[in-house]
Amino acid sequence: MIVETKIQMRFADVDRLGHVNNVNIMHYFDVGKDEFLSRTMNTKVGFKEHSIINAATHASYFEQIKPGENIAVRTSLIKIGTKSFTLLQEIVNTDTQTVKSRSECIMVMFDFCAQRSIIIPHDWRERMEQILVRG
Amino acid sequence: MIVETKIQMRFADVDRLGHVNNVNIMHYFDVGKDEFLSRTMNTKVGFKEHSIINAATHASYFEQIKPGENIAVRTSLIKIGTKSFTLLQEIVNTDTQTVKSRSECIMVMFDFCAQRSIIIPHDWRERMEQILVRG
Amino acid sequence: MIVETKIQMRFADVDRLGHVNNVNIMHYFDVGKDEFLSRTMNTKVGFKEHSIINAATHASYFEQIKPGENIAVRTSLIKIGTKSFTLLQEIVNTDTQTVKSRSECIMVMFDFCAQRSIIIPHDWRERMEQILVRG
Amino acid sequence: MIVETKIQMRFADVDRLGHVNNVNIMHYFDVGKDEFLSRTMNTKVGFKEHSIINAATHASYFEQIKPGENIAVRTSLIKIGTKSFTLLQEIVNTDTQTVKSRSECIMVMFDFCAQRSIIIPHDWRERMEQILVRG
Repeated sequence: MIVETKIQMRFADVDRLGHVNNVNIMHYFDVGKDEFLSRTMNTKVGFKEHSIINAATHASYFEQIKPGENIAVRTSLIKIGTKSFTLLQEIVNTDTQTVKSRSECIMVMFDFCAQRSIIIPHDWRERMEQILVRG
Repeated sequence: MIVETKIQMRFADVDRLGHVNNVNIMHYFDVGKDEFLSRTMNTKVGFKEHSIINAATHASYFEQIKPGENIAVRTSLIKIGTKSFTLLQEIVNTDTQTVKSRSECIMVMFDFCAQRSIIIPHDWRERMEQILVRG
Repeated sequence: MIVETKIQMRFADVDRLGHVNNVNIMHYFDVGKDEFLSRTMNTKVGFKEHSIINAATHASYFEQIKPGENIAVRTSLIKIGTKSFTLLQEIVNTDTQTVKSRSECIMVMFDFCAQRSIIIPHDWRERMEQILVRG
Repeated sequence: MIVETKIQMRFADVDRLGHVNNVNIMHYFDVGKDEFLSRTMNTKVGFKEHSIINAATHASYFEQIKPGENIAVRTSLIKIGTKSFTLLQEIVNTDTQTVKSRSECIMVMFDFCAQRSIIIPHDWRERMEQILVRG
C-alpha cells in the first residue's frame, strides 16, 4: 500500500538558490509520514501516546524542487523489525512523475515514560504485515 | 535595561529574494525574548510552568537582512499592565547600527491548566518595575 | 472578495506547548497571501518580478491552534494606498468558525533592481478597486 | 581538522514531544556546514557562485536534545571524490560530550548555470587533502 500526500508549499520553503531547501523537504516527508500512519495504523507519528520516533533518515536529493511545482509524497512500509519499521518515501512532481527526492526512515516504537524502545505490539504488527510493500 | 542578543543565522533563513524571510525574522525576535526573560525575570517565554504567551505582535520591516550580516536583537520592557506587559524589540546590524526591523509584542501571563490569563504576580511586577524602560 | 485557503499542518509547526507556534502561524498567513495574490492579481507575493514586499504585520493571537484542527486562512484587501495596500487575514477553524488569529499586513510595491518602493501600477489599481472589501 | 560550531537554539526548534524536532536538527547541521566550509575552504555551502549542493544525507538520531542543553556541531571532511566530498557531522552536548545525532552528507560540486555537477577544482582538492580526516 502506497499513500500519496499532496504537499502545500510555503513561501519560506524556498531558499536563496530558488529551490525548496533540503531541510524543508524533510518537513514534506513528515507530512507524508503523518498521513501514512494515520491512514494505515490509525495513529500519528511522534505523538506521546503512540510512541513512534524517527531514529534514522537516509535521504537523497535527485532534482531540485522549484516554486509552483505540484509535489506529492508517496509513503510505503518496506520493512518490519522487532522494535522498528522502515518507511520508504519519495517526493514526486505529480505532473511529470519525476522523482525529486527519496528517503528511507527507520521508525522506532518508543515508550516516552520509560524512555526506551519497545517491541511492536501484536495488533500493530498484524496490520503492518497487510500493508507491507515487498521490494 | 536593554538586553542585546547576537543572532546565529541559518542557511534556510534566507528566502528566494536573497534576504532573511520575514517569518524567520520572527524567530530572531523569539531568541531575544528568551534571553531577555531569562536574564531579567529568571524565566523563559512560553514554558508551561511560567505561563507567558504572546498575544499580539506588531512588526515593521525597514530594511532587508542579507546573509552574512552581523545581526543582534535588542529587547526591552516598555509597558506593564495588569495581566500583560509589552516588549519592544529591534533587530540591528551591529556593524552599522542600522535598525532592520522593530517589533512590539504584548505578552500575557497565562495559566495553562486553567486556560486563562492571570494577574502578574507581585514579585514579578516588582522586578519588572526595576527594568522598565520609560519612553 | 475573500479568498479562503485551507492549511496543511506540519508536525514541526506545533511547539512544546502543544499548539501551533506563533511564528509558524505566520507561514500560514503567507500561504494565504500567495493564493490571494495569485487568484486576484494573477501574481505571487515576494517574487522579484512582481515586487511586492511585506513592510509591516500586526498580528493578534486569540486562541491556540491545536494539532488536528481544520484550519484555513481568509484573506481580503481592505485598503489601497499610493505605493502600498493592506491585507486583512484571519485564521479560522473551519469546523467551528472560531477566529484563531487575525493579521493586518501592509504590502509595498517594490522595485528590487532600484531597491525602492514604487507607485502601484494603474492596471493593478483598477483590479484592486474591484476586489476591495470596504470596512 | 574538526570544526566545532556552538548552536543557538530557537524556541520553535522544540516540538510537541519536548525535544528538538528531527527536521530542525538538520538546520543545526547546516549551520555547521556553513562554518566548516567558510573556515576551511573560504566558501559557503549552497551559494550560487560556489556551487556546492547537498545530494544525500544519512542522519541518525541517538538521543533527544532538550531545551536548554548546550549543543554544538562538529564537522569534518572524511572523503574526497571526483565531483563530490563527504562531511561527517556530530551534534554533541558540550557539557556531557554525549553524541546526540550523527550525519554523513554527500556534497556535490555543481554548476548552477549549466545545471550539472562538475569536477572539484584542483586548488580546492589540494586544500581538502590537507584537512581530510582519515577514518
